[in-house]
Parts: sequence; C-alpha cells; structure tokens
Amino acid sequence: MTAIEVGACLGAFAVPGLPIVGPGDDLAAVIQGALVRAELPLGDGDVLVVASKLVSRAEGRFVDLGDVAPSPRARELAAVTGHDPAHVEVILRESVHVSRFARGVIVARHRLGFVVANAGVDLSNARPPGATVGRWALTLPRDPDASARRLRAALGVAVVISDSFGRPFRLGSVGVAIGAAGLPALWDQSGRVDLHGRSLEHTTTALADQIACVADLVAGQADEARGAVLVRGVRFPVDDVATAADLLRPRAEDLYA
Amino acid sequence: MTAIEVGACLGAFAVPGLPIVGPGDDLAAVIQGALVRAELPLGDGDVLVVASKLVSRAEGRFVDLGDVAPSPRARELAAVTGHDPAHVEVILRESVHVSRFARGVIVARHRLGFVVANAGVDLSNARPPGATVGRWALTLPRDPDASARRLRAALGVAVVISDSFGRPFRLGSVGVAIGAAGLPALWDQSGRVDLHGRSLEHTTTALADQIACVADLVAGQADEARGAVLVRGVRFPVDDVATAADLLRPRAEDLYA
Repeated sequence: MTAIEVGACLGAFAVPGLPIVGPGDDLAAVIQGALVRAELPLGDGDVLVVASKLVSRAEGRFVDLGDVAPSPRARELAAVTGHDPAHVEVILRESVHVSRFARGVIVARHRLGFVVANAGVDLSNARPPGATVGRWALTLPRDPDASARRLRAALGVAVVISDSFGRPFRLGSVGVAIGAAGLPALWDQSGRVDLHGRSLEHTTTALADQIACVADLVAGQADEARGAVLVRGVRFPVDDVATAADLLRPRAEDLYA
Repeated sequence: MTAIEVGACLGAFAVPGLPIVGPGDDLAAVIQGALVRAELPLGDGDVLVVASKLVSRAEGRFVDLGDVAPSPRARELAAVTGHDPAHVEVILRESVHVSRFARGVIVARHRLGFVVANAGVDLSNARPPGATVGRWALTLPRDPDASARRLRAALGVAVVISDSFGRPFRLGSVGVAIGAAGLPALWDQSGRVDLHGRSLEHTTTALADQIACVADLVAGQADEARGAVLVRGVRFPVDDVATAADLLRPRAEDLYA
C-alpha cells in the first residue's frame, strides 16, 4: 500500500464501526464515538459526509405503510406507475408537486425543494430497529440543513448530509447534498480567469454535491457501517451561512420544471 | 500533513507539471512524461481522469469564430439568448437537437448524446497555441470513448474523459464522464440486498460520473496543469466493453427530453 500525502491530494475514507442507528440516537455522539475508537481525529478542512438515511433513522422518520390510507389521487398514480398505493400516498404527503410519472417512476418535488424519484421515500433499509415484519418506508430528514448545522456544532468540521439521486438525461445515481453546514455548498469562484485572461465559464461549482459523490464512491449503500465518510484535502473557504438549499434552482428559473 | 493509507480509502491527486497541450500532441506521451517526472507510477485499480479540454486541444478542435457564417436559425436563437451568433452556429453544428433556450442559455443534445449547455462549445481556454487575437471556440473531442480507449491502451489503467456540466433542478456544475475505458461507467450492482435482505433500490451507480466529480474537486479549471487527475482506491471490476455512452438515457425513455 502506498501512502499519499493529504493536502497535496484529496482523501476519503469510511468511518469504521458505526452501529445501526435508531430513533432517538444522538448521531453526533455515535459518529464521535466511532471516530475516537478508530483513532481518527477530525482536523481543519475535513468534511464529514453523513448519509441521509442515518439522519432519518435517528429522527425516527419510519412510516408503517400498513397504517397509511391511500387517497384517490395516490391510487390513481399507483395504477399508472405500479407503485404500492400506500407508498404513493407517503410520496404525495412529502411532495409539493409531481414533476413526471410513468410506469415504474414518480419524480416529485420534495417539500424541501429537491426534485427526486419517489420524493426520497425509500423502501430499502426502511425498517425500524425491533420491527421484524411489515411494509415500511423511510422519509427524508425533517430539515437536513439544520441537522448538518447541529452535527457541525458538535463535531467542529464542515458537514454534508448526502443522498443518492437519479437525473434527467443520464442513467445511474450520483451523490447529492441535501444538507450542508460550514462550507459553500454552491461555490461561486467567479473572478477567476483562464490562461488567456478571459473570465471562466462554469465558475460556480456544486461543491457539496461533488463531495457527496466522493462519499458515495466510498460508501456501500447496503452497509450501514459506511454511513459516514470523512473527506480530507478539499480546499474551500469556511462558510457558516451557506446551506444545501443554495443548490436548488428556483422552480420559476428551471427550464425543465 | 497526515499520511493516509491508500486502499483503505480513496485518494485523488492532480498530475503535476503538465505542459499546455496543442494540436497534434500525443496526449498519452505527455501524461506519461509528467507521471514519470513526478515519480508517480500507475498501478492496478488506478483511474486516470483527463479533462475533455485537453483531449480537444490535442485534437485541434479549435474554431475561429471569425470564419463562421451564422445561419438564419443561429441568428434567431442568438437574438433570444444573447449569444454570439457565430457561437450559436457552432453549437447548432455540434448538436442534434436544441432542448431548451432562454436569455443566456442554450441547452442542446450534442451529436454524441450528451445534453449540455452550448453543446459543450466553450469559449474559455479556447485559443490555439500561437494565436494572440480573435474569437475562438473549442468543441468537444470527436469521439471521447475512443480517446479514452487509446489512452487506456497506452497507459494501462482505466481512463475517464471528464467535463463539467450544469443540471436541471440544481445549481452549479459537476464533473461528468464523456468518455471512459476500462471500468463500468454505469455500474449495475443489482443483486445487493439491504440489512433486512430486501433488494436495494438505486443499485445502478454512475461510477464514471462520480469519478469525474472527484477529479473536478481536485482540478482547478483555469489551471491547465491540473488537466489530469489520478484517482486511486476506487473498487470496481475491470470492464473493457463499457463506454461513457452507457451513461446516456435514451431520448425516448427520458421524461425531460
């Protein structure tokens, strides 16, 4: 194994030994404990990426689909898409707008503004601790930017709450930031010029989304133990005002809304 | 500076000392030379990410906008968007379809299938070596998957040709793969199950896009010297059939086409 110098490069590694998280767990304490056991002290410039699923589980965002009465609209959509009508009902309750639907797909604008398949209402790893039967769904965290701020306050480093989203035009899922604190989630580097002194195009980088992609590469989705990834060596200015909501294109300005 | 173990983690670093690339340069030899000078031997599992701009420059994909006669359609679009009519003409020649347009924006489906602002026809870092005046544009590489295969054959590692694209719904640009060789650009990990034995959703990862995001985090866009990034420690099966074109959602199946 080659050792590479951090600082000259970007490094990312999964926080080892995370327990399975359940409702009421103090996520900051759980992650801090795992970092201490792994002898991984956090340092300046580190970014801790936490899977949204961990935050949702800690917040108890489980929904027993057996308790959900689908509305006529949910039944209608379910008939077209092939989804479980109770799943669709939860999707509708989490959404402000259904963007597109077809067989097998519902793309919705989540109440937090993200446009995402099933409004982020997931059926995998969705069973609460102790439950052995039943159909369960897990919804996105209540306020992932606030969760990121709390984790940042407790851990002292920048935090990204990540999820995996599909995209128009391109196949496959990629990491996205649904919460962020301590870094410019959307980083405007305008003022930079090219080799010929011409202002650069594309100077606004989705920094937090790209950091979420790094974490997605490192983390196995099935493996709860990889729900937190430490990313080291990304250069960015500390920013305690920015949020992941900065990454949302306002619907009125969206050519694909 | 802390040293971290590669293999237990993902590491990425810019290949130092790359010269400015121009038409006819042998990109593989240029990169190989820089790697040798930097004493960075490539190893199994490494992925070399090369900025599409480097490939375009080596292929001489420069267009002197002074030589371009805009068509009536290009003038029409330019009037709405505020683009240079000659720039629009090049965009139209590179495209199969204009997806959306508005003041300041043309989103087009490139002849290679990517849906991207300005069909990837860039005005920054677009001047050929030796030119000191004039309006220049640089178009995407002729066949980036073929370029990736040639680089892979010469360098012996997996290769991603990357660019930075904007996206519907979300602000800021992110790295995307427009060429790939030696790795599953779109990686179907279906068959994996969650903690409760339920099949995982979102099991198809846009692996090459996420690797391009890692490189984008490491590379400064203005700095030609960072046009190649070595990504080490990503686990993937070698795949010599896959291409970046695998990442394209067929237009007929695209709910946002």
